[in-house]
Amino acid sequence: MRTVKSFAAKHADQPLGPFQLERRTTGPNDVEIEILYCGVCHSDIHTARNEWGGTIFPVVPGHEIVGKVISVGSEVKNHKVGDTVGVGCMVDSCGKCGSCDEDLEQFCEKGMSGTYSSYLQDKKTITYGGYSTHIVVTEKFVLSVSDKLPVEGVAPLLCAGITTYSPLRHWNVKKGDKVAVVGLGGLGHMAVKLAAAMGAEVTMLSRSPEKAKDADSLGAHHFELTIDPENMKRLKGTYNLILDTVSASHDYSAYLNLLKTDGVMVLLGVPPTPEQIHATSLIFGRKSLAGSLIGGIKETQEMLDFCAEHNIVSDVEVIAMDEINEAYERTIAGDVRYRFVIDMASLKK
Amino acid sequence: MRTVKSFAAKHADQPLGPFQLERRTTGPNDVEIEILYCGVCHSDIHTARNEWGGTIFPVVPGHEIVGKVISVGSEVKNHKVGDTVGVGCMVDSCGKCGSCDEDLEQFCEKGMSGTYSSYLQDKKTITYGGYSTHIVVTEKFVLSVSDKLPVEGVAPLLCAGITTYSPLRHWNVKKGDKVAVVGLGGLGHMAVKLAAAMGAEVTMLSRSPEKAKDADSLGAHHFELTIDPENMKRLKGTYNLILDTVSASHDYSAYLNLLKTDGVMVLLGVPPTPEQIHATSLIFGRKSLAGSLIGGIKETQEMLDFCAEHNIVSDVEVIAMDEINEAYERTIAGDVRYRFVIDMASLKK
Repeated sequence: MRTVKSFAAKHADQPLGPFQLERRTTGPNDVEIEILYCGVCHSDIHTARNEWGGTIFPVVPGHEIVGKVISVGSEVKNHKVGDTVGVGCMVDSCGKCGSCDEDLEQFCEKGMSGTYSSYLQDKKTITYGGYSTHIVVTEKFVLSVSDKLPVEGVAPLLCAGITTYSPLRHWNVKKGDKVAVVGLGGLGHMAVKLAAAMGAEVTMLSRSPEKAKDADSLGAHHFELTIDPENMKRLKGTYNLILDTVSASHDYSAYLNLLKTDGVMVLLGVPPTPEQIHATSLIFGRKSLAGSLIGGIKETQEMLDFCAEHNIVSDVEVIAMDEINEAYERTIAGDVRYRFVIDMASLKK
Repeated sequence: MRTVKSFAAKHADQPLGPFQLERRTTGPNDVEIEILYCGVCHSDIHTARNEWGGTIFPVVPGHEIVGKVISVGSEVKNHKVGDTVGVGCMVDSCGKCGSCDEDLEQFCEKGMSGTYSSYLQDKKTITYGGYSTHIVVTEKFVLSVSDKLPVEGVAPLLCAGITTYSPLRHWNVKKGDKVAVVGLGGLGHMAVKLAAAMGAEVTMLSRSPEKAKDADSLGAHHFELTIDPENMKRLKGTYNLILDTVSASHDYSAYLNLLKTDGVMVLLGVPPTPEQIHATSLIFGRKSLAGSLIGGIKETQEMLDFCAEHNIVSDVEVIAMDEINEAYERTIAGDVRYRFVIDMASLKK
């Protein structure tokens, strides 16, 4: 057991502050990681504030982790001391169910073990996330990270990257496909970069004219204002795939109308309340409204390799650990381009 | 021009009654058909009563037509006098757009010509449907009907058959797949027969215990009561595909919960108002909520051939033309097993 420093929320209505944590001794299949950087995902905030319910307090958030391997168990084959590695939203799953067999651990029928505010597969041991100096994770859930990329920009790939990469692959985006991205935040900016790297013709759909320049510099080929009704009329039937990253309440039907026949709109964000949908907006044009949740471990590795090959990282703003509460407020206000990443050196001081 | 007998609604609030109609002279690409039977689809009622708006009065409903060819134009290749043929929900489309090129005339970008209360491709000539002794239709939209099957049972295949066949094919239902059908009416009873013939393990989901026997005799392997919360809990994650034929208001999420990972629920019915959907019911399990609308002409012919091969027809109750208003009331009350079909001999007297 190793006592490590971390930052935790002790109650839903309290800011995050220093917390001491016991990490387990490295077991035969475990990898012990010294965390270098950890991204700040909106889910961290929802969980710290118990906005989805069910948070296990105290909670140490963080599931966009990159670090260096400092010890490995006797059975570990794929990682060695000194390797740069990543850990995402999951740290274990049953490994035996149909979903695990299909490399879809995120849908493990026994329930995957989330990286924080969750339980290991014994359903007893609470998990604590990446706002911490070290973490111990079973080998299968540790990803290899290329040293070609700046690691602080890699951290958000572990959640924002795979969340957008997975639906682009699952719905077979290929060269020339017209892909639209709704919402330009942590997820949206990765969606633009990844879809463009796959050869798609990418459109950013946004309510804010001031985002046009950013969309362009991220690699979007077009920028369309959704608050202009004439625009929305003109764009009817345009896209093969829409990735909807918005977690505020919004009208799905307005976007479904922009899909071609057989087009798919994939929900990645979770609005606080249900949205209305009329059957006709799907029936005419044989359209689909789908959802997607992160991605399996195999696909996460594939995404990291793809990003290394295409030189893709997240645009980040690096902060110190003790700036986390301010970063939460700025994330909620949409005042970040596009992801805060905590430099864990700041926690070790 | 031929003056023919028909039944029409002259206003939304009037019962259907006799109406004289001019059918065009058989052009070079036309097939002139003496109608033998015409099915009664719920859409006929919605249109006659202008419940969807936009009805062109007087309207002669009917888009589940079977009859005998009595004359053909000089250019017609695939049909000859004496052939048994069918006409479904469409009588023309532009033939040039992307959708028409992909044999998806129902999604013609210029707007397909519906069989009634619609316009031909000149966008001027009003169309009149199958509650009539004769119809003249351009060759491409005339289907070949096998003489192996009783024609009165074939009529509903032209709408109810293709509406359920098309999504089963599009979403690749294969032997052993678990398919659930919601709603046991005109569409639902065809969905059960067709899915079973494709080798699926078919479950009828229903609120009415008294439908269990019928579901069984139609070929459903299981019958599950949806009003029992314990049942709905037990069935979580069971089905690959759900065909939802219900056009009354209902809770989509309750059914989405019954899908396996990557499962698809296809809406075929149109509830009167939008339904609520929460993003999480799609995100967890990467599920899709989709819609489907009849099917293209090529696929309609494939469906008719499949039905001939598998000896599948609709279960029908044959009525005389002047029983139509009573049949409408009984259709609305769900008091038909499972489709009224008008014997057009009754109109010729």
